[in-house]
Amino acid sequence: MSMDLRELIKTCHRNNAMNSITGILHYSGTYFLQVLEGGRAEVSATYHRIANDPRHSNVILISCSDVRERLFPVWTMGLHEGMDEETRNIFLRYFATKDVNPETVNVDSLLDVLQDLSAELS
Amino acid sequence: MSMDLRELIKTCHRNNAMNSITGILHYSGTYFLQVLEGGRAEVSATYHRIANDPRHSNVILISCSDVRERLFPVWTMGLHEGMDEETRNIFLRYFATKDVNPETVNVDSLLDVLQDLSAELS
Amino acid sequence: MSMDLRELIKTCHRNNAMNSITGILHYSGTYFLQVLEGGRAEVSATYHRIANDPRHSNVILISCSDVRERLFPVWTMGLHEGMDEETRNIFLRYFATKDVNPETVNVDSLLDVLQDLSAELS
Amino acid sequence: MSMDLRELIKTCHRNNAMNSITGILHYSGTYFLQVLEGGRAEVSATYHRIANDPRHSNVILISCSDVRERLFPVWTMGLHEGMDEETRNIFLRYFATKDVNPETVNVDSLLDVLQDLSAELS
Amino acid sequence: MSMDLRELIKTCHRNNAMNSITGILHYSGTYFLQVLEGGRAEVSATYHRIANDPRHSNVILISCSDVRERLFPVWTMGLHEGMDEETRNIFLRYFATKDVNPETVNVDSLLDVLQDLSAELS
Amino acid sequence: MSMDLRELIKTCHRNNAMNSITGILHYSGTYFLQVLEGGRAEVSATYHRIANDPRHSNVILISCSDVRERLFPVWTMGLHEGMDEETRNIFLRYFATKDVNPETVNVDSLLDVLQDLSAELS
Amino acid sequence: MSMDLRELIKTCHRNNAMNSITGILHYSGTYFLQVLEGGRAEVSATYHRIANDPRHSNVILISCSDVRERLFPVWTMGLHEGMDEETRNIFLRYFATKDVNPETVNVDSLLDVLQDLSAELS
Amino acid sequence: MSMDLRELIKTCHRNNAMNSITGILHYSGTYFLQVLEGGRAEVSATYHRIANDPRHSNVILISCSDVRERLFPVWTMGLHEGMDEETRNIFLRYFATKDVNPETVNVDSLLDVLQDLSAELS
Amino acid sequence: MSMDLRELIKTCHRNNAMNSITGILHYSGTYFLQVLEGGRAEVSATYHRIANDPRHSNVILISCSDVRERLFPVWTMGLHEGMDEETRNIFLRYFATKDVNPETVNVDSLLDVLQDLSAELS
Amino acid sequence: MSMDLRELIKTCHRNNAMNSITGILHYSGTYFLQVLEGGRAEVSATYHRIANDPRHSNVILISCSDVRERLFPVWTMGLHEGMDEETRNIFLRYFATKDVNPETVNVDSLLDVLQDLSAELS
Ligand SMILES: Cc1cc2nc3c(=O)[nH]c(=O)nc-3n(C[C@H](O)[C@H](O)[C@H](O)COP(=O)(O)O)c2cc1C
Ligand SMILES: Cc1cc2nc3c(=O)[nH]c(=O)nc-3n(C[C@H](O)[C@H](O)[C@H](O)COP(=O)(O)O)c2cc1C
Ligand SMILES: Cc1cc2nc3c(=O)[nH]c(=O)nc-3n(C[C@H](O)[C@H](O)[C@H](O)COP(=O)(O)O)c2cc1C
Ligand SMILES: Cc1cc2nc3c(=O)[nH]c(=O)nc-3n(C[C@H](O)[C@H](O)[C@H](O)COP(=O)(O)O)c2cc1C
Ligand SMILES: Cc1cc2nc3c(=O)[nH]c(=O)nc-3n(C[C@H](O)[C@H](O)[C@H](O)COP(=O)(O)O)c2cc1C
Ligand SMILES: Cc1cc2nc3c(=O)[nH]c(=O)nc-3n(C[C@H](O)[C@H](O)[C@H](O)COP(=O)(O)O)c2cc1C
Ligand SMILES: Cc1cc2nc3c(=O)[nH]c(=O)nc-3n(C[C@H](O)[C@H](O)[C@H](O)COP(=O)(O)O)c2cc1C
Ligand SMILES: Cc1cc2nc3c(=O)[nH]c(=O)nc-3n(C[C@H](O)[C@H](O)[C@H](O)COP(=O)(O)O)c2cc1C
Ligand SMILES: Cc1cc2nc3c(=O)[nH]c(=O)nc-3n(C[C@H](O)[C@H](O)[C@H](O)COP(=O)(O)O)c2cc1C
Ligand SMILES: Cc1cc2nc3c(=O)[nH]c(=O)nc-3n(C[C@H](O)[C@H](O)[C@H](O)COP(=O)(O)O)c2cc1C
Repeated sequence: MSMDLRELIKTCHRNNAMNSITGILHYSGTYFLQVLEGGRAEVSATYHRIANDPRHSNVILISCSDVRERLFPVWTMGLHEGMDEETRNIFLRYFATKDVNPETVNVDSLLDVLQDLSAELS
Repeated sequence: MSMDLRELIKTCHRNNAMNSITGILHYSGTYFLQVLEGGRAEVSATYHRIANDPRHSNVILISCSDVRERLFPVWTMGLHEGMDEETRNIFLRYFATKDVNPETVNVDSLLDVLQDLSAELS
Repeated sequence: MSMDLRELIKTCHRNNAMNSITGILHYSGTYFLQVLEGGRAEVSATYHRIANDPRHSNVILISCSDVRERLFPVWTMGLHEGMDEETRNIFLRYFATKDVNPETVNVDSLLDVLQDLSAELS
Repeated sequence: MSMDLRELIKTCHRNNAMNSITGILHYSGTYFLQVLEGGRAEVSATYHRIANDPRHSNVILISCSDVRERLFPVWTMGLHEGMDEETRNIFLRYFATKDVNPETVNVDSLLDVLQDLSAELS
Repeated sequence: MSMDLRELIKTCHRNNAMNSITGILHYSGTYFLQVLEGGRAEVSATYHRIANDPRHSNVILISCSDVRERLFPVWTMGLHEGMDEETRNIFLRYFATKDVNPETVNVDSLLDVLQDLSAELS
Repeated sequence: MSMDLRELIKTCHRNNAMNSITGILHYSGTYFLQVLEGGRAEVSATYHRIANDPRHSNVILISCSDVRERLFPVWTMGLHEGMDEETRNIFLRYFATKDVNPETVNVDSLLDVLQDLSAELS
Repeated sequence: MSMDLRELIKTCHRNNAMNSITGILHYSGTYFLQVLEGGRAEVSATYHRIANDPRHSNVILISCSDVRERLFPVWTMGLHEGMDEETRNIFLRYFATKDVNPETVNVDSLLDVLQDLSAELS
Repeated sequence: MSMDLRELIKTCHRNNAMNSITGILHYSGTYFLQVLEGGRAEVSATYHRIANDPRHSNVILISCSDVRERLFPVWTMGLHEGMDEETRNIFLRYFATKDVNPETVNVDSLLDVLQDLSAELS
Repeated sequence: MSMDLRELIKTCHRNNAMNSITGILHYSGTYFLQVLEGGRAEVSATYHRIANDPRHSNVILISCSDVRERLFPVWTMGLHEGMDEETRNIFLRYFATKDVNPETVNVDSLLDVLQDLSAELS
Repeated sequence: MSMDLRELIKTCHRNNAMNSITGILHYSGTYFLQVLEGGRAEVSATYHRIANDPRHSNVILISCSDVRERLFPVWTMGLHEGMDEETRNIFLRYFATKDVNPETVNVDSLLDVLQDLSAELS
């Protein structure tokens, strides 16, 4: 798989700003973890586009729920890339290994990880 | 839109049984309300197929979460069709009107409605 | 004040059925206590009409909130009239006197009273 | 619709001070969001006047409840006007879009927004 | 101390019915335990009269609080007199001895006792 | 009504110190709000004397309960007198108007007010 | 150790009735488990006598607390003796073995056991 | 792997009865799910023997905690074998598929399943 | 009663250090209040010796329970003696009078008092 | 028993780093207390190796549960050795004696102790 991430994130910023969608996208080098925040209709439409995107496969929906307040309000789509020492430590603080299985990963711990990663971006 | 529901529900039973998916599908005559229960991977793959199905449009994801126990374990996809007196009363018990807006509908009330509808099926 | 209650309640049934509004109306002989259940827009419009109705005055709004399920789903507007022995006992079970002051009455106790009264109707 | 806001807010201050009513009024340019705090009788009378005011229409009551302590005790009616960058960010922190639908808006999130807006005023 | 209880309870019924006061009065032969339920003004006025009544002394106020619903709605003043076997057992179920010290008695246990005693009356 | 408050408060200090009673007394110019803290017997005896005091009338008992710790341990009877701007603001923060009705006033809000007033004394 | 249990339990009944003490005494054949219920002074005095009784040794106090209602109100000292099949099963339902270590036994589980044993007596 | 289950369960009954261990053992035909209940020392020793038993491999410890009361007090080791229709339905009521992954299976759901299976045994 | 407190406290330190017992001892001049913390066996043995000590009488056990963490870990037996102004204020903050009745004193308030007293020691 | 701890801890670091296992190991001079954190499969495999290690005996499993976040994320196996004054004080703050019985020790208190010990290491 070859992927132009810079191109991808530009599309995200353009579309998400228009749809008032915020979130974070982690690319480990192997797989993506992503949070989409926004209205149900906008998130659904965006999610369906992403699920159909041939640039990845095996998309798995982990959780979807109403929130009182956004977790990533300042990011139209914050990008966190790679798996350096610090990143691995964040994953290991909440998980058994640095690689998470989307079919079984605990949602709360995953959000803890992604919030810690977003703190590294700012 | 013309739709062969009998055909559709046969496909549901065939695929869902294979994927250990259960749930309920309400067709009001105008729109669908559906619950899919099962593993994250199976539900995701099924949901992506449904979202791409040209037989409907404007698919909106309302909620997705882990559960301790299934709500509809006996239905590989229970079908509830139409909007008779009794059905309208069930909707009105939990909502302002008999038509729910998927972008704003309260998830708990919606599940209350669908469980009441499933009680009518058995 | 002279009031044709039969006329009034007919109007309630006609309008409320159209607006999917339910509730209960108690007329003590001196004042009204009323619960309106339904969508925010429908309840607001109905309430504004009632507040402007010259047949009563000093209308006081006691409480307004979202509910998981209606309390009076079977009544397009149940009418409870008068203050017989049984009615007085219901009021006294929850209040200091049989007459409640709308400016200070406790909302939960008031709903307890009105549900006990509605039980008398059916 | 043409509206002299300065005139309106003067009336608010005059009447509300007399009735010990406090609150906040947001005018987006298109619609109003308002909180009235005070005694039930005073809030009701004021609300009925506002609901009948021909300067706006489609008034929708969102919520009304007893509180232990006022949220806006220092404002006889704080006015927040317009929808600049900062304001839009406050709305988007709690909602899907910068425009809220009064029929479905979540009450707690709305109060979060209005408190954040009031912080901008002082 | 000589006391005509029949006379006393007649006064209670007369006054309390007028004031919508309910409650229970236990006379052990040595001391009284009493619950007064009703509006704050009515309970206060009645309590002040009782506190000044020369037929007893050392009146001690144990607790006074708002309630959602009366405990003794059917008794304008239920009288429980004496300390037979059954009564002593009720006291001992909740207390160290059959005689309670008003300065230290636990309020919840006392109400448990008085409700058990009232069950004997009906 | 003419009242020598200085005289009154001297009596309070003398008696309350002897009885280990603490509390606060607010005199608005028109009525009193008072908290008495101490043993049940001492508070009862003091309260009965106050209730019988011809210098005021219409005494209403609002609440009486056991506490884990006193709210006003340093005041044998702190006196707060008058209704200046600051005082009115404290009342309005918790109540509909600056005058509270003893028959309906919420106990928790009243204690909030009196603690805010006591903060002004020290 | 030789012990006349019949004699012992007679003393219990005589003294405990006088002191309004209730409870249960289990004798496994090897050791005692006992609950004493009553006033603090009476329980203390009784406990000190028992602790000094040369007929047993290594008395260990496990727990002592105020209760809202007695657990064994009908027993001036219910005696449960022996370790038959049924008794062992009751112990094993809540504990690792049929013998409990007084230094570490969980208080709640112990009370569960003793209440199950008392049910066998009646 | 060839396994004489009858032999195995006899050993379980013999040893567990001696160690006051209870529990349930499910053999799907492919893998085991087992609950051991008892004292920490006894459960540990038994567990270490089982973990070293060459008749199976990849033993994974899922959870271990103190309990107020045993879940399977009547079984020195109840054996549930096979995966018939009814069994599969019990698994699917709580899980995505009839096969559970010991590394990620939810503990509470697993105990729900095993209790439902034990109900089939009695 | 004549009592050599210095002698007594030396014995406490010697024995308690050996038994890993900690706590606090308040001597008002008239009576003792004491907390013993440690293992059940050690606390029991110590308590039985104290209860039998002829230097005092009327020993009353107020409460005994397992704790997550000691309240007085640094005191093998902290001695607080006398009833000066500051001490009386501490008692009055939590109690009706400076003298507490061991038969009725509230356990939580008593521990609050003793912790405040121990703060004076360090 | 003779034990080369330095050798042991080197093995721990090597293996645990590979398995993403973290934790703490306390050696009192007489016995070990250890926490292993990581995936269920990795912790199980490591635990089985440890339980079989001839360098110690009487291994007792105290507790095993899923966690939201690791307690010792920075230690591939922190070693705390010995029982100096400070260490004994930490044990006594939470336990009856400095030696804990693995069959009965309270899990929460044990984790409190081990976290206090780990604070000494850093
Ligand atoms: C991992 C991943 C994440 C994506 N995230 C977003 C996103 O947040 N918003 C978005 O509009 N498109 C996102 N896309 C791209 C969509 O799949 C799709 O290409 C894009 O929305 C099409 O936009 P366009 O029609 O404006 O080119 C993502 C794609 C991938 C592979
Ligand atoms: C409202 C709606 C609900 C559907 N529900 C399901 C379903 O629960 N399971 C399923 O496999 N297909 C469902 N389908 C059909 C899928 O969109 C798709 O046609 C089908 O999965 C293709 O299966 P096939 O490849 O076996 O024909 C649904 C379609 C619609 C329009
Ligand atoms: C105490 C009281 C309760 C009322 N309740 C209702 C009601 O529940 N629904 C309603 O439509 N009108 C109600 N009304 C009547 C309205 O004030 C108004 O007259 C009516 O809605 C006008 O309807 P119309 O335009 O169809 O005649 C009530 C009036 C009073 C005085
Ligand atoms: C959006 C909106 C908010 C208003 N808020 C208040 C208010 O808080 N208090 C008030 O007295 N009038 C308010 N008014 C004005 C009332 O509708 C009404 O004109 C006014 O109370 C009449 O007062 P007057 O009789 O003293 O002129 C508001 C009007 C609008 C359109
Ligand atoms: C123990 C006791 C309980 C009493 N309870 C009541 C009561 O519940 N209601 C009441 O009106 N008077 C009660 N009384 C009587 C009052 O003290 C007082 O005598 C009476 O209210 C005067 O009423 P009268 O002015 O109608 O005679 C009680 C007196 C005693 C000694
Ligand atoms: C509003 C008010 C509050 C009072 N508060 C107290 C008080 O806290 N303590 C007190 O002893 N007397 C208080 N009194 C005075 C008593 O009513 C009574 O006059 C006094 O206790 C008699 O005391 P003496 O017999 O020592 O003069 C208060 C009186 C009034 C009107
Ligand atoms: C295991 C055990 C339990 C006892 N329980 C009680 C008891 O509940 N009440 C009691 O008065 N004595 C009890 N006793 C007896 C006391 O130790 C003591 O002998 C007795 O109270 C003396 O009473 P007497 O002076 O009336 O003979 C118990 C003794 C033992 C060994
Ligand atoms: C899946 C499985 C479960 C077992 N469960 C138990 C058990 O509950 N109790 C037990 O003593 N042995 C159990 N065993 C057997 C032990 O591994 C071991 O063979 C046995 O305890 C040796 O006992 P013995 O020395 O008395 O032969 C189990 C073995 C397997 C494979
Ligand atoms: C109020 C009071 C508190 C006591 N506290 C303790 C104590 O905490 N530890 C203790 O060993 N002895 C305490 N004692 C002393 C015991 O009653 C007893 O005299 C002492 O334990 C005997 O110890 P010895 O045999 O070493 O002399 C206390 C005595 C009294 C009167
Ligand atoms: C008290 C104790 C704690 C141990 N802790 C660990 C540990 O955390 N990780 C580990 O791999 N081995 C641990 N061991 C060592 C194992 O028992 C075993 O010797 C080791 O895992 C074998 O590793 P090797 O095959 O790489 O030599 C511990 C041993 C003892 C006695």
